[in-house]
Amino acid sequence: MVGIIMGSESDLPVMKNAADMLKQFNIPFELTIVSAHRTPERMREYALEAASRGIKVIIAGAGGAAHLPGMVASYTTLPVIGVPIKSSNSIDGWDSVLSILQMPPGVPVATVALNGAKNAGILAAQILATFLPHLQQVLAEYKEQLIQDVSNMINRTKE
Amino acid sequence: MVGIIMGSESDLPVMKNAADMLKQFNIPFELTIVSAHRTPERMREYALEAASRGIKVIIAGAGGAAHLPGMVASYTTLPVIGVPIKSSNSIDGWDSVLSILQMPPGVPVATVALNGAKNAGILAAQILATFLPHLQQVLAEYKEQLIQDVSNMINRTKE
Amino acid sequence: MVGIIMGSESDLPVMKNAADMLKQFNIPFELTIVSAHRTPERMREYALEAASRGIKVIIAGAGGAAHLPGMVASYTTLPVIGVPIKSSNSIDGWDSVLSILQMPPGVPVATVALNGAKNAGILAAQILATFLPHLQQVLAEYKEQLIQDVSNMINRTKE
Amino acid sequence: MVGIIMGSESDLPVMKNAADMLKQFNIPFELTIVSAHRTPERMREYALEAASRGIKVIIAGAGGAAHLPGMVASYTTLPVIGVPIKSSNSIDGWDSVLSILQMPPGVPVATVALNGAKNAGILAAQILATFLPHLQQVLAEYKEQLIQDVSNMINRTKE
Amino acid sequence: MVGIIMGSESDLPVMKNAADMLKQFNIPFELTIVSAHRTPERMREYALEAASRGIKVIIAGAGGAAHLPGMVASYTTLPVIGVPIKSSNSIDGWDSVLSILQMPPGVPVATVALNGAKNAGILAAQILATFLPHLQQVLAEYKEQLIQDVSNMINRTKE
Amino acid sequence: MVGIIMGSESDLPVMKNAADMLKQFNIPFELTIVSAHRTPERMREYALEAASRGIKVIIAGAGGAAHLPGMVASYTTLPVIGVPIKSSNSIDGWDSVLSILQMPPGVPVATVALNGAKNAGILAAQILATFLPHLQQVLAEYKEQLIQDVSNMINRTKE
Amino acid sequence: MVGIIMGSESDLPVMKNAADMLKQFNIPFELTIVSAHRTPERMREYALEAASRGIKVIIAGAGGAAHLPGMVASYTTLPVIGVPIKSSNSIDGWDSVLSILQMPPGVPVATVALNGAKNAGILAAQILATFLPHLQQVLAEYKEQLIQDVSNMINRTKE
Amino acid sequence: MVGIIMGSESDLPVMKNAADMLKQFNIPFELTIVSAHRTPERMREYALEAASRGIKVIIAGAGGAAHLPGMVASYTTLPVIGVPIKSSNSIDGWDSVLSILQMPPGVPVATVALNGAKNAGILAAQILATFLPHLQQVLAEYKEQLIQDVSNMINRTKE
Repeated sequence: MVGIIMGSESDLPVMKNAADMLKQFNIPFELTIVSAHRTPERMREYALEAASRGIKVIIAGAGGAAHLPGMVASYTTLPVIGVPIKSSNSIDGWDSVLSILQMPPGVPVATVALNGAKNAGILAAQILATFLPHLQQVLAEYKEQLIQDVSNMINRTKE
Repeated sequence: MVGIIMGSESDLPVMKNAADMLKQFNIPFELTIVSAHRTPERMREYALEAASRGIKVIIAGAGGAAHLPGMVASYTTLPVIGVPIKSSNSIDGWDSVLSILQMPPGVPVATVALNGAKNAGILAAQILATFLPHLQQVLAEYKEQLIQDVSNMINRTKE
Repeated sequence: MVGIIMGSESDLPVMKNAADMLKQFNIPFELTIVSAHRTPERMREYALEAASRGIKVIIAGAGGAAHLPGMVASYTTLPVIGVPIKSSNSIDGWDSVLSILQMPPGVPVATVALNGAKNAGILAAQILATFLPHLQQVLAEYKEQLIQDVSNMINRTKE
Repeated sequence: MVGIIMGSESDLPVMKNAADMLKQFNIPFELTIVSAHRTPERMREYALEAASRGIKVIIAGAGGAAHLPGMVASYTTLPVIGVPIKSSNSIDGWDSVLSILQMPPGVPVATVALNGAKNAGILAAQILATFLPHLQQVLAEYKEQLIQDVSNMINRTKE
Repeated sequence: MVGIIMGSESDLPVMKNAADMLKQFNIPFELTIVSAHRTPERMREYALEAASRGIKVIIAGAGGAAHLPGMVASYTTLPVIGVPIKSSNSIDGWDSVLSILQMPPGVPVATVALNGAKNAGILAAQILATFLPHLQQVLAEYKEQLIQDVSNMINRTKE
Repeated sequence: MVGIIMGSESDLPVMKNAADMLKQFNIPFELTIVSAHRTPERMREYALEAASRGIKVIIAGAGGAAHLPGMVASYTTLPVIGVPIKSSNSIDGWDSVLSILQMPPGVPVATVALNGAKNAGILAAQILATFLPHLQQVLAEYKEQLIQDVSNMINRTKE
Repeated sequence: MVGIIMGSESDLPVMKNAADMLKQFNIPFELTIVSAHRTPERMREYALEAASRGIKVIIAGAGGAAHLPGMVASYTTLPVIGVPIKSSNSIDGWDSVLSILQMPPGVPVATVALNGAKNAGILAAQILATFLPHLQQVLAEYKEQLIQDVSNMINRTKE
Repeated sequence: MVGIIMGSESDLPVMKNAADMLKQFNIPFELTIVSAHRTPERMREYALEAASRGIKVIIAGAGGAAHLPGMVASYTTLPVIGVPIKSSNSIDGWDSVLSILQMPPGVPVATVALNGAKNAGILAAQILATFLPHLQQVLAEYKEQLIQDVSNMINRTKE
C-alpha cells in the first residue's frame, strides 16, 4: 500500500494527481492530512507506524518551509517521495523545492518536480514494481500510452 | 536560560557566536547538538521539555534543508530563533534561509541573517529584557559599544 | 503593548493579520503607518519613544527595499519583528526578504515569512509569554486549535 | 543490483559516495561512465538493457544541463535516482538541480540533494528493502548509527 | 529546410512564431511534436535522419527539464537552436533556460531567449544566409522593417 | 564637494576606488564611516547637514541589508549614489543590490554595479559636470583614456 | 532639459511616470522611442548629439537584455539614469535589472528600481538641482508632500 | 572566416577555447578585443564591416552587463554567437547570461553556456558546415572523438 500525506487541505488539488495515478495502476493507497508543524505528534506516529501498517512507500507533499517529507523520512526507513507544492505561502516554489530536496547525508527524500504529484504516483509504482513483475508490465503499458499521447498530438498539429 | 542547539558539530564555529554574546551579557545558556533528521526523538524531547527545564528562548541553527528550528517550534510555545547556516551541503545558503524563514501560519520562527548567530544571541537577550530591566540596561550599553566601534573605525580611517 | 507599524497604507491588508492574532490573544496593541523613507523623523521618534510609551515588542512590515524594521531596530533595544511584504514594487518578494533578514552583526531583526504577519503576531505573544504565565496558557490553547484545524481538514478530506 | 552511472569521470569523487554506501549495505552494484551528450547510443543501450541485466535501481549523476537521469528514465521503467552535481561547468549547481528535478508528467526522476550521492545510495537501499526484510534490518541499524554519530558529536562538544 | 520540433502540443502557441518568421522569409520548414521523455526513440530517429532528409538547421523548443534541444544535438552535427519555453510545469522559466543553455563542452545548443521562438526563426535564416546571398538580402530588408517599426512607434508616441 | 561614506571599515578596500577616481578628476571629496544600524544619529546628522556643508553629491556604500544609501536619501534632497558591496555577511551580493536598488517611489538612490565604487566616482563627476564645463572636458578625456586602454589590450593580444 | 528615451512603445506606461514627475517639477523634457537593437544608428546619434542639443540628463528605460541605458552611456559623458522595465519578454525583471546595473568600470549607469521611472524623474531633478537653488526648493517641498501623504494614510488608517 | 571578439583582455583565457576549437577544425579565424562600452565606435565599425571583410560568423564573449554580442547583432545580419563570461565583475555569471540571452524579438544572439567558448567554436563550425560537406565530415569525426574520450574514461574508471 502507498501512503499519501500532505500538510494541508489546500494541497489536495495537487496531491490527488498522485492518487489518480495509483488508481489507474490498481495500486492500493490511503490519503490523509498530516501537518508537520501543526500536528507533529500525528506525523511522528504516522511515520513510526507506517511500515507495520503495511505501507511500503510514502508520498508526502508540502509547500513553503516544507518539513513534512524530510521529517517523515527521519522516522522511517521506508522510501519517502517528496512533492514540493507551490502554495500561496511559497516564494514561487523555491522554498518548497529546497526544503524538501536538500536533505543532509543519511536521510534521503526522493524529490519530484514542483507540483509533480503525478510523477510521485508513477515513481511509487516503479519502486513497488522492483519486485512485482505484473506492475512492471503495467508501467510498460503506461509508457506506450505516453507514446500514443504524443501521436495524437502530432496528428492534431497536422490539421 | 537560553538553549542553543544546532544540527551538527560542524555548525559549532558559527553557533558559538551566539554563546559568546550571551556570555558577554551574563545570560545563562546551554549548548548542545540536536539533529532533526538523525535524532528526531531527541529533538522532540528537547522541545517538549525545554520550558519545564527553565529554558525561556531557544536558538536553533541548521543548514541545507534546515528543519530543526521549525520542528522545535512545532513542539513548544517558547520563542524559537532560527539561524540559517551556510553549510557545505547548502546551495549558497538559500536552502538554509528559505527552509527556516518560510514557516506556515501558526508556527513562527524568528529568523536572523545567514550565519547570523551573534544576532541570535542579541535577540534572545532582547526577548528576555522585555521583563528584565537590568538586561535593558545591558543592551543599552551594548548599543553604546557599537557606536564606539564605529568611532574607532572613523579614527583608523583618518590615519 | 505591541506596536504594529508598516511603511504604507497598502501594507494594511497583510499587516492586519498581526493585529487580528493579537486581538484573539487579548494582547493590547496599536497600529499605524510609519515610513522609513518618507517620514524618517517620525520613524526615529517612534523607535526612540516606544519603550517609554510601554511598548514591549515592535512588529514592522515593509516591502521592496524594506528598511523600516532594521532602522527601527537601530534606534531601540526592544525586540523588532520584521514582516517582509510582497508589495507591487517588489521583485517577487526577494528584495523585501533580504533587506529585512540580512541585518549586520549587532542589530538583529526577528524576520518571519514573506507576508507572514499572522506569525509576527504569534511571535510577539510568545515573546511576551516568556514572563507571563497566562499567555503561555493562551498559546498552548492556540496550539490545540491548530491540531483541531487539521482534524477538521482530515474529516473533510474523508468525505 | 544497482547501476551507478555518471556523465563524466570528473563526477567520480562525488558519485563514489553512492558506491561506498551500497558496499556498507552489502548491496551489489556496478559503476561506469555514460554520457548523455557524448555517448547517446551507449546511454540508450544501457537504459534499455538495464532491467534484463538484473539492475533494479539506477543511480545517475550529472552536472550542468544534466540530461542523463531524465533520459535514462525515458527509456526504462526502473526507478531512476538523479544526483545533481555541482560541476565546474555549473552555475552554482542550479542548472544541475533544475534539469534533473523538473521532469514532465509521465517520467519521474527521484532527485536527491546537490552532490547528494550518499543519499542516493541509501535511497536505492530503501527501494530494494521494500521487499527484502533483511535490508530493512540493515537500514534500521544504519539509523541507529546516525544516532550514535550525533551522540559522539554531543560528547565532543561537551569537552 | 528547417526542422521545427517541440516537446508538447502546448508549446505550439510559442513555437509557431518561429514558423511564421520562416514563412515571411520564404524558407521551407516542417513542424512537428517530438518529446524527448515520452518518445525518445522518435527523437533519436528524427535527429539521426534529419541531415539526410535535407534539414540544415533544427529549432527545438521545450520547457521544464528541457532535454529535447540538447539530446537532439547529441545525435546530429547540424546546428540546433534551443527555445526555452515557460510552460505550466516550469519554475518561472529558469529550469527551461538552464537545462537548454548549460550544455557541456563538445555539444553546443544555440539558445535564444525564454519563449524567443521568433528569434529562433531569424537565427535559422541567418545561419542559412551564410552561404545564400539572396537570404542575406532578405535579412537586410527585415532589419529595415525593424527600423520602420520603431519609426511608427515614434510617430504614435508623438500624438 | 563629494561625500563618500560607507557602513564599515571593511568596505574601505572597495570604496577607495571612488576616492581614487575623484582624485584623478581633481574633485574635492571627504571620506568617512557612517553606519546606518550602529550610528543612526550620526547618519541622520550627516545627511541633514551635508548640503549646508557644501556637499553636492553623496556616495554611500554598504553590504547585506544595506540601508545606508536609502536612509541618507530619505533625509536629503542631494543625489545619493549607492554602491552595493559584496561583504562577508552578504548572500553573494544579492541582498546588498536589492536593498539599495529597490527604493520606493519618492526617494531614489542612483545604484551602480556590485562593488562598483569606481563607477560611483565617475557618476558623481558626471553629475557635477552638468554645470561645470571644465569637468565635461575632463570626462571626455577620460573616455579617450578608456579607448587607449583597449588599444593597449589589442596590441598585447596580438603578441 | 531632460531626455527620456525607451526601447519600445510598450515601455511608455511605465516611462511616462518619469515625464509626469518632471512636469510636476516644471523641468523641460523630451520623450521618444530609441531602440538599441532595432535602431542602433538612431541610438548612437541621440547619444552623441544629446549634450550639444542642451540635454543635461538622460533617462533611458528598457526591458529584457536591456542595452539602451548602458550603450547610451558609452557614447556620452552626460549622466544616464537607467530604468529596468519588467516587460513581457523579461524573466520576472531580473534580466532588465542586471543588464542595466552591472556596467563595467569606466561607464556608469545610475540605476533605479524595477519599473522605477518616477524615481528616475526625481533623480534627474536632484542632479539638476545640484546647481539650481530654486530646484532644491522644489525638491524640499516635494519631501514635505511625501510626509503629508503619510499623514493622510495615518488618518485613513485610524478610521 | 570566423571573427572572435571579447570585451576585455581578461576574457582571453576563456575565449581562446573558441580559437583552439577552430584551429583543430582548420577553420580560419581572427581574434581581437572590442569593448561595447569603452570603444562603441570600434564595435560599430567591426560589426558593420564584418560581412564585407569575409567574416561569416561572429563569436562575441563578454561578462557583467554584457552588451557586446547583442549590440554587434544589432548592426549585422551575420549569425552572432554570444559567450557569457563569469568575469570578476559578474554576480556569479547571472548578469552575463541574462544580458546576452534575453534579446528582444528581431535581433537574436545564439547563446552558449557560461564560459562555454569551446562550444561557441563548435557551433560556428556547425553553422559553416551547413553548406561545406568537408566540415560536416570533420564534425562527424569530432563526435567520434567525444565517444573515444568517454571510452578512455570508462577504462580509467575500471582500474
